[in-house]
Formats: sequence, structure tokens, C-alpha cells
Amino acid sequence: MLSNSQIKYIRSLHQKKYRQQHGVYLLEGEKIIDELLSSSANIVQIFGTDEWILENDNGHADKVTAITPRELNQISTLRTPNQVVATVEIPTFKLPSTWKKDDLYLALEDIRDPGNLGTIIRTADWFGIKHIFCSPDCVEVFNPKVVQATMGSILRVEVHSVDLQKLLPQSGLPVYAATLEGEKIYSKQIEGGFLLVGNESKGVSETLMKAVEHQISIPKYGKAESLNAAQATGILLAEMRRQLSSSS
Amino acid sequence: MLSNSQIKYIRSLHQKKYRQQHGVYLLEGEKIIDELLSSSANIVQIFGTDEWILENDNGHADKVTAITPRELNQISTLRTPNQVVATVEIPTFKLPSTWKKDDLYLALEDIRDPGNLGTIIRTADWFGIKHIFCSPDCVEVFNPKVVQATMGSILRVEVHSVDLQKLLPQSGLPVYAATLEGEKIYSKQIEGGFLLVGNESKGVSETLMKAVEHQISIPKYGKAESLNAAQATGILLAEMRRQLSSSS
Repeated sequence: MLSNSQIKYIRSLHQKKYRQQHGVYLLEGEKIIDELLSSSANIVQIFGTDEWILENDNGHADKVTAITPRELNQISTLRTPNQVVATVEIPTFKLPSTWKKDDLYLALEDIRDPGNLGTIIRTADWFGIKHIFCSPDCVEVFNPKVVQATMGSILRVEVHSVDLQKLLPQSGLPVYAATLEGEKIYSKQIEGGFLLVGNESKGVSETLMKAVEHQISIPKYGKAESLNAAQATGILLAEMRRQLSSSS
Repeated sequence: MLSNSQIKYIRSLHQKKYRQQHGVYLLEGEKIIDELLSSSANIVQIFGTDEWILENDNGHADKVTAITPRELNQISTLRTPNQVVATVEIPTFKLPSTWKKDDLYLALEDIRDPGNLGTIIRTADWFGIKHIFCSPDCVEVFNPKVVQATMGSILRVEVHSVDLQKLLPQSGLPVYAATLEGEKIYSKQIEGGFLLVGNESKGVSETLMKAVEHQISIPKYGKAESLNAAQATGILLAEMRRQLSSSS
């Protein structure tokens, strides 16, 4: 049973302003909460239906509050809420102190669509990328639509909000920008470094392009004008990983 | 200026039932309508703001009706409508009469998310795939969210709704199903044929799997449990195209 002020507090976390004010975000659904329970994230509270609580005898009993399906509907960000909602501390990550020359990093400039950012984080996690660097004009990482699209990968990948214009040159690593005119990824020899992906409609900005040595592209066989930004990121990461793992 | 009954008719096309009843679907936005005008699709009518009409002196003047921004808001399926909406005849496609052994075809089973299906159609178009075969339980192709996510590729790729269980064996082509346990795509030698992708959470069904000779997968380097279905489709298509074009 939740008090009105609890409901009000959780609902406030649907908004960026209050997430930032409280340093807390929301995670939802059985599958993602399963991953949360076995992660090192700082759980504030878990709100589960009786059904969920019965099935989940876990080490966080002190943080679990039973809620009714009606309350679940009130606090959820989803159209079809799924059993359980948790409030989680927004983590703060330090920038890496060293950069690995044979590893891959991902830099995102001005990615606006929450679904795209979430899918990119999930895909990065699949390809073993530990750090993503977002320009401050990207959609906020703890936006519920981003979080849900990551399918739990938000708990594993460290997403940093940084000035890419400073970071990329400072790292000393090669930067590969995804562009429509770049060299075909399959004829390019990839070393470790950054994959840089730009805004959904405008691509990488001219200003940032000055920090870039390499432009890479995905060969086109048909007529679509471009690929979805998350799709392009996945295809490029897959090929970069393939090249790096076959050369090592 | 639109009559109430015109507005009612166009708004009815937001729903599958009426799209199917009238054999008409909606396309929206300057960019996609640009592609529509240079396509061979059967345009029924175009509803554009004065601004759009002034900038678009095209060969379809007889089909253009001027609308106010308020009317645009009433007929659009988008939260932020963009200048122009068109009604377009739903095309009917014949199944290919022959199958090309060195070409790629895409088969989709039970893809439910409209954004995923739209992104897959766009990506297929990029990789020069002309035909997509959807099981009848896939989301409807002319759903506005699917259509908009294709970014115009809906006008170029022929999407068929068919019984895959019959079609795949009849084609006589190899079928490569995307599964988590499949052979790594990079060590598999791909010939032309079908890439088969299954439902977002359940993958390819057991029943359909009986029509499949090959299972392929994308190597995983990190911890995400799976990839988004559209993402996986894109990564596999890219690699299949690469192998086919380097062997030809």
C-alpha cells in the first residue's frame, strides 16, 4: 500500500527535472528487475505486486513494498505495466584514467530519439563496450524510454555525458566517424578507438568532424537514403569487433 | 478546406480495419511525400498546407487539396505533423515467379513492434532486398508507425503476407534462421537465400524451425542477453551481403 505522497514522488521521477533533483531513476518489469537484483546498482526501493513478491525471494526484502495492480498502474511509465517498479540511484562514473589502444569506445553526438539511444546501449553491451560518451545534447540516459529499450544493459554500460570536442583529442585514440561518404568499413583496416555516431538527421557536426581522422560507411546496395542511427551503429560495431578479434 | 466527412474518412485510416476496408493507407511528412511523388505508387489524394503547395510544383496538382494547419493536426497520425499527408492505394504484390539463387530474401515471423518492422524494411531497402515475406501474425505493414519508420522504403520494398511454412520449402532456397545458438555468421559460408528472423522475445518458432537448414548467430563479446530484432537483422544482412558480393 502506497501513500499519496509516495505515489506523487515516484510519478515525479517520470520527469527529467525530478530525476536530476533526486538523483534517482526508474526501472520496470520482471526481466529488467531480475538483472537489477544481480547487479551492483544502488537500489532505493522496489515496488512489486503480491504475485511478484511471492515468486521473488531475494536478498532485498527490506527494500520491497507490496503494491496493488492499481498502484502499479499509477506509478508505471509503461502502457502495460509489468509486476514491478524499482527506484535506483543514478550512478556517477569517472572518466577512464587510461585508454586501451586495442579496445572499442563509442561516442554519440546529439542522438535525440530515446529508442535509438536505448538500442545503442543494448547493442554496445552485446559487443562488450564498457564506456559510451554522449554529447550533452543527447537525450537523457535515464529517460524511461531509453532505460526500457536498453533491456537491462543500462546496468552494465557506463554512459558519460561529456564535451566530445575535448575528450576525443585528449584520448589520443583514432576516431572513426560514421558518415554516408566515408570509406567502406570492409576495406578500411580498423584499430582500436572510438566509433563516433552523429545526430539522426544531420549526422556528425562539422565542428566535431575536425577532431576526426577517419570516416567510415556501410556499403549500400539498394535505394534507402540512409540507415537508422542505431542500426548503423550496430552494423559498424559488429564489423569493428570482427576485425579487431581476427587481428588479435 | 476539408469537409467533416473528409476529415472523418482520413482519420478512419488511422485504424487497420478501415485501411483494409478502403484499401488505402496514409503517408506523411515532406521527405516521405517527396519520395512518394517520384515513385510509382497510386496516390489517391494529397493534403498539403499552403506553404507546402507553394514549394511543391509537381505533376499531381489535380490531386492536391490545400489544408490549414488546424486541419493537418486533425488528420495526422503524428504528434508533430509535418506539412503534408497523402492517401495512397495499398498495393498488391504477386509472389516472385522465380527465385534467384544468388540473391537475398528476408522472412519475418511474428514481428510485433511497428518500429522494428519499419526499421527492418528501411534496412532491407539499403541492402537491396526487394521482397520481404511476413507471417500473418506480424504487425500490419501499413500501420502508420511502421510506414513512418520505413522513411519511404515502404514505396520500394515489396512486403508480402504469407504462410512461411509453405513458402520457404517451396522456394527451394537455403534458409538461414537467426538464433542465439546458431553458427557464427563469420565462419559460415553464406549462399543466396532467406534470412529468417523471429519474434522479438521468442525468436523463430519450433514449428517453423523445421523448414530451416541453417542457424546463424552474431558473436557476443559482452553481457546483453540478446539484440533488438531489427538490430540483429541489420547486422546479419550486412554480413550476408558482404560475403555474397565478395564471392561473386
